[in-house]
Amino acid sequence: MAERPIQDFVEPFGRTCWGCGQQNAHGFRIRSFWRGEEAVCTWRPEPHHNAAPGVLNGGVIATLMDCHCACVAISAAYRAEGREMGSHPAIVMVTGSLHVDYLRPTPMDGAVELRARVKEITARKAVLTCALLAGGIETARGEVVMVRARPA
Amino acid sequence: MAERPIQDFVEPFGRTCWGCGQQNAHGFRIRSFWRGEEAVCTWRPEPHHNAAPGVLNGGVIATLMDCHCACVAISAAYRAEGREMGSHPAIVMVTGSLHVDYLRPTPMDGAVELRARVKEITARKAVLTCALLAGGIETARGEVVMVRARPA
Repeated sequence: MAERPIQDFVEPFGRTCWGCGQQNAHGFRIRSFWRGEEAVCTWRPEPHHNAAPGVLNGGVIATLMDCHCACVAISAAYRAEGREMGSHPAIVMVTGSLHVDYLRPTPMDGAVELRARVKEITARKAVLTCALLAGGIETARGEVVMVRARPA
Repeated sequence: MAERPIQDFVEPFGRTCWGCGQQNAHGFRIRSFWRGEEAVCTWRPEPHHNAAPGVLNGGVIATLMDCHCACVAISAAYRAEGREMGSHPAIVMVTGSLHVDYLRPTPMDGAVELRARVKEITARKAVLTCALLAGGIETARGEVVMVRARPA
């Protein structure tokens, strides 16, 4: 059976959200998976996601990092409490801040890869770092602060 | 005659880009205008731009800020050199870094407004601050560093 992405267990974002909602027909529908202490996501841009022709738009990069890290942070929060993802009460986290350093242009001739790690996690927040790679080369680096919210 | 947006004079982003390209049929097609020392942009999200239902996605907010500030920075760079926008050689700037603080959820029942200011500008870079408002209330605040690149 195919491995299910973290998004399948993140309510409500994993269904509805522009970046990570698996049922948002117009959105990016990213899929994130744990690989040891890293969480990875591979995503293929479409030609219209460009800035200049052939170069991936910086806002698309920010969106990928934000949504990947949000889902990973929520997954990590369940793990930190020794709970199964999706068990009740649901853990909800929202983005407190997002910082992206654009290191070099990101080519669009293939998929890009996101690799995130949890740098810090407490009962109130999580801080994650995230690299974006294209063709195996890091082109952008981000840090996302996710803040715990009340369940919806 | 209708006022032309800053994007009309920003090559090549103002035509092609996902966030600000006026000819990108799939993108956000934002339009930015100077109003005194502020540059403003009004944009209406579609329902699929949500995070949780009814709340604007953080990556969309980051995209709006990045593209609005990029075009405003380029416009300000022409102004700083006493040149008309679009005159040759073209001034090209790319995003060096982007920081967004999400202050509260951004509702999606109407247009959002961006208000950017140039905080610092030199021959090599520009630093801009940008507020996002919904219903007149600031919901996110950003800072964007734009770096001068060689003309394409």
